[in-house]
Amino acid sequence: MHVLYYTPRTCALASHIALEEAGVDHELRKIDFGASEQQSDNYLKVNPKARVPALVTPRGVLTETPAILAYIAQINPDAGLAPLDDAFAFAEIQAINSYLCSTLHVAHAHRMRGSRWASEDASFEDMKRNAPRAISACYDLIETTMFRGPWVMGETYTIADPYLFTVAEWIEGDGVDPARIPRIIEHRARMAERPAVRKAIAAERGA
Amino acid sequence: MHVLYYTPRTCALASHIALEEAGVDHELRKIDFGASEQQSDNYLKVNPKARVPALVTPRGVLTETPAILAYIAQINPDAGLAPLDDAFAFAEIQAINSYLCSTLHVAHAHRMRGSRWASEDASFEDMKRNAPRAISACYDLIETTMFRGPWVMGETYTIADPYLFTVAEWIEGDGVDPARIPRIIEHRARMAERPAVRKAIAAERGA
Repeated sequence: MHVLYYTPRTCALASHIALEEAGVDHELRKIDFGASEQQSDNYLKVNPKARVPALVTPRGVLTETPAILAYIAQINPDAGLAPLDDAFAFAEIQAINSYLCSTLHVAHAHRMRGSRWASEDASFEDMKRNAPRAISACYDLIETTMFRGPWVMGETYTIADPYLFTVAEWIEGDGVDPARIPRIIEHRARMAERPAVRKAIAAERGA
Repeated sequence: MHVLYYTPRTCALASHIALEEAGVDHELRKIDFGASEQQSDNYLKVNPKARVPALVTPRGVLTETPAILAYIAQINPDAGLAPLDDAFAFAEIQAINSYLCSTLHVAHAHRMRGSRWASEDASFEDMKRNAPRAISACYDLIETTMFRGPWVMGETYTIADPYLFTVAEWIEGDGVDPARIPRIIEHRARMAERPAVRKAIAAERGA
C-alpha cells in the first residue's frame, strides 16, 4: 500500500495521476494549507520540508515530484510510463520533469510565495507583476523546443505528461496567454479526457 | 564521445565530476558567462535554455543536472554511482538531487539573478539580503534530515555526492555559517580529496 499526502490544486496532482495510470493501490491524505497543516508536528514527521507531495511507500517516504514519478514508473514497468531500459530516453524525461520542477514551478511560486526569497511587500508585488513574464518564458520554451506531441515525449505517454498537465492547469491564473501555446493547451484538453486524470481530479476535489 | 558544456564555478561541476567518477570519455567546452556566450546563437542551438550544463551524447543533448547525473550512472553501471535495480533507493537519490536543483540552487540564484523573477533594484537588494536565510534553511534541512554520512546516502558514494559538493563550494559566498552544518563541511573536505574531484576542478580552472 502507498499513501499520497496531497493538497488540491498543487503539483501533488501529477503523482496522483501517475499512481492511477500505473494502477498502484494507494490511499490519499489531504493536507490543509489553509490551516497550515503542512507545518504541523505530525506532517513534519512525514515530510520535514513542509511541502506536498509526499509518498509513503512500504520502504519509506519519498518527496519531490520528479523522483516520485520515476519511482512510480519503475515499480510498475508494465504500465509503460517511462523507457526504463534506455538511459538516454529516460534522462530526456527526467530533464523535462526537472525543468518543470526547478524553473517553471519556481517561476509560478513567485506569484504567491515571495516570502521564501524576500521580505518586503514591495518585492512581493514586483514578483507578482513579473510572474506572467517569467512563467510565459518557460511555456514558450516548452512549446517550441521540448514538447513533441501528441504527448510530451512524442507518440508515447510518459510520466512527463501528468506533470505538464498539472502545472498547465494553472496557466490562466498565472497570467499566461493560452493563445501563445496552442500545443500545450491541446495537450491539456487531451489529458483531461483520460480516465486516470478524471478519477484523480474527482478524488481530490471531492475528498 | 560525450561533450560537456560548462562554466567554471557553476553547477556544471557536478556532472563533470560524475563523468570522471564513471570513467566516461568526454571533452569539455567552456561557455563564457562574462561574454554572455550562453546567449549566443551557437550555444542556443545546443541548449535553448541558455544555461549550463549541457551534455552532448551520441544520442542527443541532455540538460538539467539531476537528469544528467542519473544518465551517467546508468550508462556505466560498473561505476556503482546509483542503485539502478532498486526503484526506492534510486528515487531517494533523485529526491535529494531534485531538492538541490529546485530549492537550494534556486535560493542561491536569488543572490545574483533576481531579474529572472522581478524588475526593481530594491527587490534585487531585498533578495540578496534574504539569500543567506533562505539558503541556510536548505542546508539545515540537509544536515539534519537528509544527509546520512559519510556520503550523502550513507556508506555508498552516489551521484548525490558530486552535486552536494558542487553547491557546498558556494557556502561561504552565500553567507551561510559553516559552523551550523559540520557534517556537510566535513563531506566537502572528504570530496575535495577524491582524485575525480581534483581532476575536474583542475580541468575547469586551468581550461
